[in-house]
Amino acid sequence: MARPIILDCDPGHDDAVALLLAAGNPNIELLGVTTIGGNHVLDKVTRNAQVVATIAGITAPIFAGCSRPLIRDVVVADDIHGDSGMDVDFSLPEPTAKVESTHAVDFIIDTVMSRDDVTLVPTGPLTNIALAVRKEPRIVERVREVVLMGGGYHTGNITPVAEFNTWVDPEAAHIVFNESWPITMVGLDLTHQALATPEVEAKISRVGTTPAAFTVALFDEFRNNYRDAQGFDNPPVHDPCAVAYVADPEVLSTRRTPIDVELSGKLTAGMTVADLRAPAPESCRSQVAVDLDYDRFWGLVVDALERIGEP
Amino acid sequence: MARPIILDCDPGHDDAVALLLAAGNPNIELLGVTTIGGNHVLDKVTRNAQVVATIAGITAPIFAGCSRPLIRDVVVADDIHGDSGMDVDFSLPEPTAKVESTHAVDFIIDTVMSRDDVTLVPTGPLTNIALAVRKEPRIVERVREVVLMGGGYHTGNITPVAEFNTWVDPEAAHIVFNESWPITMVGLDLTHQALATPEVEAKISRVGTTPAAFTVALFDEFRNNYRDAQGFDNPPVHDPCAVAYVADPEVLSTRRTPIDVELSGKLTAGMTVADLRAPAPESCRSQVAVDLDYDRFWGLVVDALERIGEP
Amino acid sequence: MARPIILDCDPGHDDAVALLLAAGNPNIELLGVTTIGGNHVLDKVTRNAQVVATIAGITAPIFAGCSRPLIRDVVVADDIHGDSGMDVDFSLPEPTAKVESTHAVDFIIDTVMSRDDVTLVPTGPLTNIALAVRKEPRIVERVREVVLMGGGYHTGNITPVAEFNTWVDPEAAHIVFNESWPITMVGLDLTHQALATPEVEAKISRVGTTPAAFTVALFDEFRNNYRDAQGFDNPPVHDPCAVAYVADPEVLSTRRTPIDVELSGKLTAGMTVADLRAPAPESCRSQVAVDLDYDRFWGLVVDALERIGEP
Amino acid sequence: MARPIILDCDPGHDDAVALLLAAGNPNIELLGVTTIGGNHVLDKVTRNAQVVATIAGITAPIFAGCSRPLIRDVVVADDIHGDSGMDVDFSLPEPTAKVESTHAVDFIIDTVMSRDDVTLVPTGPLTNIALAVRKEPRIVERVREVVLMGGGYHTGNITPVAEFNTWVDPEAAHIVFNESWPITMVGLDLTHQALATPEVEAKISRVGTTPAAFTVALFDEFRNNYRDAQGFDNPPVHDPCAVAYVADPEVLSTRRTPIDVELSGKLTAGMTVADLRAPAPESCRSQVAVDLDYDRFWGLVVDALERIGEP
Repeated sequence: MARPIILDCDPGHDDAVALLLAAGNPNIELLGVTTIGGNHVLDKVTRNAQVVATIAGITAPIFAGCSRPLIRDVVVADDIHGDSGMDVDFSLPEPTAKVESTHAVDFIIDTVMSRDDVTLVPTGPLTNIALAVRKEPRIVERVREVVLMGGGYHTGNITPVAEFNTWVDPEAAHIVFNESWPITMVGLDLTHQALATPEVEAKISRVGTTPAAFTVALFDEFRNNYRDAQGFDNPPVHDPCAVAYVADPEVLSTRRTPIDVELSGKLTAGMTVADLRAPAPESCRSQVAVDLDYDRFWGLVVDALERIGEP
Repeated sequence: MARPIILDCDPGHDDAVALLLAAGNPNIELLGVTTIGGNHVLDKVTRNAQVVATIAGITAPIFAGCSRPLIRDVVVADDIHGDSGMDVDFSLPEPTAKVESTHAVDFIIDTVMSRDDVTLVPTGPLTNIALAVRKEPRIVERVREVVLMGGGYHTGNITPVAEFNTWVDPEAAHIVFNESWPITMVGLDLTHQALATPEVEAKISRVGTTPAAFTVALFDEFRNNYRDAQGFDNPPVHDPCAVAYVADPEVLSTRRTPIDVELSGKLTAGMTVADLRAPAPESCRSQVAVDLDYDRFWGLVVDALERIGEP
Repeated sequence: MARPIILDCDPGHDDAVALLLAAGNPNIELLGVTTIGGNHVLDKVTRNAQVVATIAGITAPIFAGCSRPLIRDVVVADDIHGDSGMDVDFSLPEPTAKVESTHAVDFIIDTVMSRDDVTLVPTGPLTNIALAVRKEPRIVERVREVVLMGGGYHTGNITPVAEFNTWVDPEAAHIVFNESWPITMVGLDLTHQALATPEVEAKISRVGTTPAAFTVALFDEFRNNYRDAQGFDNPPVHDPCAVAYVADPEVLSTRRTPIDVELSGKLTAGMTVADLRAPAPESCRSQVAVDLDYDRFWGLVVDALERIGEP
Repeated sequence: MARPIILDCDPGHDDAVALLLAAGNPNIELLGVTTIGGNHVLDKVTRNAQVVATIAGITAPIFAGCSRPLIRDVVVADDIHGDSGMDVDFSLPEPTAKVESTHAVDFIIDTVMSRDDVTLVPTGPLTNIALAVRKEPRIVERVREVVLMGGGYHTGNITPVAEFNTWVDPEAAHIVFNESWPITMVGLDLTHQALATPEVEAKISRVGTTPAAFTVALFDEFRNNYRDAQGFDNPPVHDPCAVAYVADPEVLSTRRTPIDVELSGKLTAGMTVADLRAPAPESCRSQVAVDLDYDRFWGLVVDALERIGEP
């Protein structure tokens, strides 16, 4: 039976692929897409979500969320995602997918309060999720799991020890990681294994559809940007890893560990601090993603694109 | 013309008097009462608001808000307000005033977005206001003014330099003080001048109504608690000072000054840092309350109780 | 009987006057002068101490100390003290007073360990004192008192709530304020009362000596700099206030209060946090200076200059 | 030619072995031993150094240093090192090695200023080294290298991300890591590879001398304590790894990387933050120890004990 999820994202090249994977994988029921300022400002990432939905014929409703972090100033990742938040050498359609009038935070709350099987999949800053849980604390008991792309236990990108999503809004991350729901952190330690190599691109290209061509174009752009900004040969495709774990838990291994978020460090603000010194206590409900099954992962992406077909 | 306000409070003895003043003063139109965990937990302060409304025949709608601060753990002031959050030697009625189903945060947003003349008057931790402005940033431009009880420029109570409301949720206070709306901080420097002496109580007692008798009982309890907890002879009646300033700006003097909130200090977390070194820049839209016109203030309270009469 | 002191200073215009007062006042025995990077870099303030000693015929030995704060980067107050650390329109002599080879920290330790009546009078950043007490903790029990210029309980200059000396090396200040010796903080609340008005200058001018003329020239320069940098009409002459209190405790009133130093605040680093909420506990050995006897203070300065005469 | 070192330590079981290695290895000239409060209070660790010197006939002079961290309160590791700081089931002699009257800080300064080939090998909190460099900044240019046991780039012990030595006095560590001298951090990532297994103990036992028997007894005690406190089967023998690297750089591999120390984090204070995101810049003079040559390491220890023989 397909797992119902809400994808809370900031497309973003890799968010776009996460959205395609969520839409095309048969083990996932995409209840809705919520957007959050992160890779770029809210208006741009929301429009990008509409564009992706239009390209792939995704009918899940789209809801705009928060435009800025709780406390810190807005910072965007335009070195990685470009001026539009999803720069790509591809002819993008005018979006026909529309944005609902309900606020993302209320969509999350209302959906979770109306059923007890929802998995939240945030792949951007955690502001929407944090606001939802502070406005309606009862969602904690009702959410099935939070599977998020963000953080890292030994790896940072925006700083030596912090990942972009948790660093952009550490206070929101602190809120989310300190609630008692089950939480899986798919962090940089894992996602830096999900590299889009030319071989991967070739496989995707062979799908032969518009969404597949779009995906290849995203990876091409992403490769250039990651090479220039962070010295990668092939770009790490972060966000689909979280979706992949919901679709198929065998796609990555995990380790249970307490996780907290540093708020006040001068060098470490936004760091996700995992305590790996000893086995986690029985009561611990959080875990980190450790090793990726690379072929299985890319197999899921290719499969999703094949199922999406030519909309 | 009466100024429309939303009173965001955590009754609390002095919040109760603030509510009576807001309801009875002819210059104020009480659009609604929103509650926030602070002096005690949300359920208790919400019920206390209902009780006060029932005693005084207040018909403004009541909305429950957030039950906890954004980041920090819940702390209540039961040394000052007792087990119920409003312990008092007075026969309290079962509340007939009901609580609306809409969330306080949404009531604030919807009200402000539907008209452009609303003054927000928070007298508890600022979590509701912070969530409202993060969920709907456009309220900043539409609110007429924020007049809050909280903080202090030279005076602390819960710590040497921090006041209870801003210390309980400093992140929320940081959000509120860093928005561009006009903001008046009625802090401890001012409210420690608003002492409920026996003479004041005698004047209120002479009003001769149930709400007046209730007020006197609140002050008696408050006196005992403040004497035991903080060494005051007469209790400082904080929250009505903010309401009084809305009703009659002549009741206190102000000074324009930039204000920010310390989040990370070990000794200073929750401190409202005012920059009094020089005249405020032209662009500064915040001010602090400095000197209270004591007689004018208590005159307003007595007048409100007389107008409320015997409901 | 004259009180033996070590003056730990960073001349600096007002340090220069502090040095003159310490040298000329009959109630003070100036055991030595130690220098510390602060108002300007160590080499410059050490040379300035030599120059002042040369002008006034001061024979107390001079010892150079630390050139930088414990943790933070070097910051100098050249907006107030100029390029030389003691810019002045006065023909300064080549210094004949020499600098001893012993390190200031060791001079402090050795002197305090050899007698039990020494008062330390720091008027710059507290790095030397902090290093001395960490290197030889037994000085704490042997020092008679620490009387320092620095900090403020309600007043800042370099930031809204921090004074320059404690802000430049807050870690050193934390060390000094957390030891158990008796400590008197002569902070900005007090020193902003010690204004060098034209009337004061006129009185000093009438002393008619070279050191007096030098003092007047210092005040002239200081007035210009304080007017331009901080908007003062007349400059506050900070450092001599601490020396004056040792010479004559009646020159200012004090209040006993616990004092600590904030290290980690974003807005409040370097703030001296006094707890004025209630009477200090019996065990409290720190106090803050509150009110200055203006005439008595300037009388001490004039008297010292008269006693110094024409060297 | 033997490399001259000063061993700055807090014995401590593993410090004791570091001392034996430094004394017995022919590539090292032990100029002096300085002590620092850490594993236990200063008096105890200094006495322990005397005891070890007495057992092994070590004639290098011993100097006592600082008794407490710069800012933080004293914390000792008595869960690991016992009440004496070096609890062991072995008949310890009354020490005949004496403690010099010169302060450790001055011995470090004087030695470094008198020659230009000194390697500092701190294996405890960095307070002595920090005080030395603040008192005499010129030592930075003259020290050949700092090779320290402390910190970790992916491993903590006292907290999830901080190692005991850097956590006990993070301000001192901040001072040491921010100076421009060449610095090698032999942290927990490396030292957790240096496990004293029963096989290692057997080899050492076969040396057949009193110092070797003493070493085995230290490891037995250490094994028990580490098992109870941190769940290790075999104890990690931290401090000799730093000495071993000086004696034989081939004993471990290193990676050049910038390193800084977090001072203000709530979860991360005392963490050594290495930036491993990219190759270190040319100007970077710090490196971390990565992989231990286990057999080579223990070979050095056995060899040193053999050379020490039966004193």
